[in-house]
Amino acid sequence: MTVETTMIEGRNAVQEAIRSGKPIDKLYVLDGCTDGPIRSIVRAARKKDVLIQFVKKERLDQISQTGKHQGVVAYTAAYEYSDIEDMFRLADQKGEDPFLILLDEIEDPHNLGAIIRTANLAGAHGVIIPKRRAVGLTATVAKTSCGALNYTPVAKVTNLSKTIEELKERGLWFVCADMDGERMYDLNLTGPIGLVIGNEGSGVSKLVKQHCDFVASIPMKGDIDSLNASVAAGVLAYEIVRQRLH
Amino acid sequence: MTVETTMIEGRNAVQEAIRSGKPIDKLYVLDGCTDGPIRSIVRAARKKDVLIQFVKKERLDQISQTGKHQGVVAYTAAYEYSDIEDMFRLADQKGEDPFLILLDEIEDPHNLGAIIRTANLAGAHGVIIPKRRAVGLTATVAKTSCGALNYTPVAKVTNLSKTIEELKERGLWFVCADMDGERMYDLNLTGPIGLVIGNEGSGVSKLVKQHCDFVASIPMKGDIDSLNASVAAGVLAYEIVRQRLH
Repeated sequence: MTVETTMIEGRNAVQEAIRSGKPIDKLYVLDGCTDGPIRSIVRAARKKDVLIQFVKKERLDQISQTGKHQGVVAYTAAYEYSDIEDMFRLADQKGEDPFLILLDEIEDPHNLGAIIRTANLAGAHGVIIPKRRAVGLTATVAKTSCGALNYTPVAKVTNLSKTIEELKERGLWFVCADMDGERMYDLNLTGPIGLVIGNEGSGVSKLVKQHCDFVASIPMKGDIDSLNASVAAGVLAYEIVRQRLH
Repeated sequence: MTVETTMIEGRNAVQEAIRSGKPIDKLYVLDGCTDGPIRSIVRAARKKDVLIQFVKKERLDQISQTGKHQGVVAYTAAYEYSDIEDMFRLADQKGEDPFLILLDEIEDPHNLGAIIRTANLAGAHGVIIPKRRAVGLTATVAKTSCGALNYTPVAKVTNLSKTIEELKERGLWFVCADMDGERMYDLNLTGPIGLVIGNEGSGVSKLVKQHCDFVASIPMKGDIDSLNASVAAGVLAYEIVRQRLH
């Protein structure tokens, strides 16, 4: 996965970048500039927790590469997605059975980042996310992954169920996490495996669940409903690690 | 754990509440009011991610109970800490060996909330945090705990090492997580136990580590350093759950 930093200058370009959901790492705004377009950019950026620095004209002229910043310059990180072949290559290089983590509509960038971090450390060969109704690789995800995004391939697919079926043909077994499943300790989770983690609120979708070979449950002894999605992913990924080691 | 909502009115009182780190759930500010004190309250509140609503004078007069709001009203949630005896009582009621989670200077409220949530579901009887250099029970913690804060006792102690020594006398064994430890699967983690999780950046402090009976390591197969603190807590807590079940 390569990370490039791009500079976007000028009001329309920056406005558009923020609107499109492009990950903005940092926004430089001309200090004291309070006209409508600038205020609307600042407002939109604040909503997305973008780091904003108000700087003097001299500084902005210095940063600018085009000389046409119109009072605003944004740094964006462009994270490139990998494809699933990269994951198989990685498993092959390491001489290991493929271990992939599939995320069914994870919405919180902190969860996605933490799961990529966990995937890296648990020895998973990649993370697969759906194109729609899910968070993508934003700057927050990159930050929360603590660098794991540079090592662990992340691929985006159109249809998670279809991808599961294709991967089954390549020998993978699929396990998803749900309350009504069999206790994870009692399942055989060794061999080529895809671990499916559901949405923070609604869990694994019915359709995706139907495509899984096993449903695993994490024992719940408490008073509330469910673990945080990234904690659940960690607990399950490490049950796979444990079984692979023994 | 009881949760009370308190209303704080007036500039000095609100300013002071924010400054003291009291968890503010919501801040109502008189719309259009931009004098120094109000702006400084809004700035301080923004820094702490407090939800701010700008409202008309009529609405503020309606909310106010004292009639002396001076343009600002804050809702705070007062979460009460439990003491360690509550945790022993809980273990006793359930007829289980005590299982406590001790946090050595966790700073991120999302991590603290997620760990309280995990503690509840993994069947731990309480969470112990230090009074200093650690996040306390803020509104964000309560929210991230997904209600677990209402069930799982959280106690604050002055000196974590001293607490560990006192609990050892009551029969608990202590395990902390660190990279140089023995593989967690190879340790005996059954019986009355205290699990110690270290700070997000620096891990378990040297002093606290010296007081632990075991050092457990989570197998790390990846390219980066460490798991997110709440994921690590989840993985270790569930290794304890697994060993208790078998």
